[in-house]
Amino acid sequence: MARAIAFDAYGTLFDVHSVRALCEEMFPGKGAALSQLWRLKQLEYTWLRSLMGRYEDFWAVTRDALVYALKNQGVTPVEADLDRLMGEYLRLSPHAEAAEALKRLKEMGIRLSIASNGSPAMLDAVVSNARFDTLLEAVISVDPVRVFKPHDAAYKIVTDTLGLPANEILFVSSNGFDVAGASHYGFESVWIQRSTGQMEELGVQPRHAIRFLTDIPALLA
Amino acid sequence: MARAIAFDAYGTLFDVHSVRALCEEMFPGKGAALSQLWRLKQLEYTWLRSLMGRYEDFWAVTRDALVYALKNQGVTPVEADLDRLMGEYLRLSPHAEAAEALKRLKEMGIRLSIASNGSPAMLDAVVSNARFDTLLEAVISVDPVRVFKPHDAAYKIVTDTLGLPANEILFVSSNGFDVAGASHYGFESVWIQRSTGQMEELGVQPRHAIRFLTDIPALLA
Repeated sequence: MARAIAFDAYGTLFDVHSVRALCEEMFPGKGAALSQLWRLKQLEYTWLRSLMGRYEDFWAVTRDALVYALKNQGVTPVEADLDRLMGEYLRLSPHAEAAEALKRLKEMGIRLSIASNGSPAMLDAVVSNARFDTLLEAVISVDPVRVFKPHDAAYKIVTDTLGLPANEILFVSSNGFDVAGASHYGFESVWIQRSTGQMEELGVQPRHAIRFLTDIPALLA
Repeated sequence: MARAIAFDAYGTLFDVHSVRALCEEMFPGKGAALSQLWRLKQLEYTWLRSLMGRYEDFWAVTRDALVYALKNQGVTPVEADLDRLMGEYLRLSPHAEAAEALKRLKEMGIRLSIASNGSPAMLDAVVSNARFDTLLEAVISVDPVRVFKPHDAAYKIVTDTLGLPANEILFVSSNGFDVAGASHYGFESVWIQRSTGQMEELGVQPRHAIRFLTDIPALLA
């Protein structure tokens, strides 16, 4: 049975679409489109930069993606707006059940960590804002290996940091591509499907598929 | 001045959304959504499989993307439907100005080639269906290097095949990520913007940005 869990951050513990409200306030009628496109391009740019060997950290990539989204919606990106919207990434709301899930797992004696594309500064801010710091043993960023998920190196840093083989670690993500990458690397993968999830067709299936983070303890029983 | 041109195939010479009509005929009301999502996932899966080191050829990836798109639209994928829709990829319509552009460039004595993610069999079919075979010196697939654009290896096969340095080759694509990858590799890049194009924010700009393939001869003058 797995004694350690690595959680993806963005989309899994934290709701990336909690930026929608500010997008809508600043650009009425465009909040949903901006939020969707911002996230889509953020992911695409992590993949494309990794493939081209042009790594920039997640903060820079997220800002570039925001610039694309604003232009696409007919908004000229200006520094003040970019700074204000990027600030939301430092205080993303945790998903509703995240705190309860982490607390219960911690009480069970499971070693808990985050394994994320985020830069260390971004992760520190969002983790501390959610008061998750005392629940987590490690907050692991891909930044030292300068390549994003689902490249193997972005998962190897997790096994190296935790000092455990991949098959003794539960890797939890709501992002289909991340679950695929984690499964490919050898983790015992858990896909958080929530209500809208559709698994990617990448020839790898998650070991477990559940609706909520609070369904994890039952997997460990 | 460049004496050779490498054209991207899908989206640049050939209209990937020429599948929309058959999608709409088979699944009324869903043609546009299926066509968009099919293309989006096709590209995502090339990037993700390349990053994971799980290469499958473009035919397999395109079929996987179609499965995702159909499921997303509430359609159960069955073999006969998949086969019929995949068949469209062997006879995609060329963009309206493609034949004229190729003919004029050939008359100017420029060496013309295709540099594509497509598998050799897919490219042969679509090129021969459009009667472009006599205009092209080479049809170059990434398949031998088993990684998709924008990885450097997918561009190196072009310079290797043509026997020219990258900066003596014009690389033409309507796909922003491909223009970025080609620029990064060192080609003299040409972005075909058509009416709707928005360049990706990847820290690389195309050397030239034009509306139509028929604007290329003026770049060479």
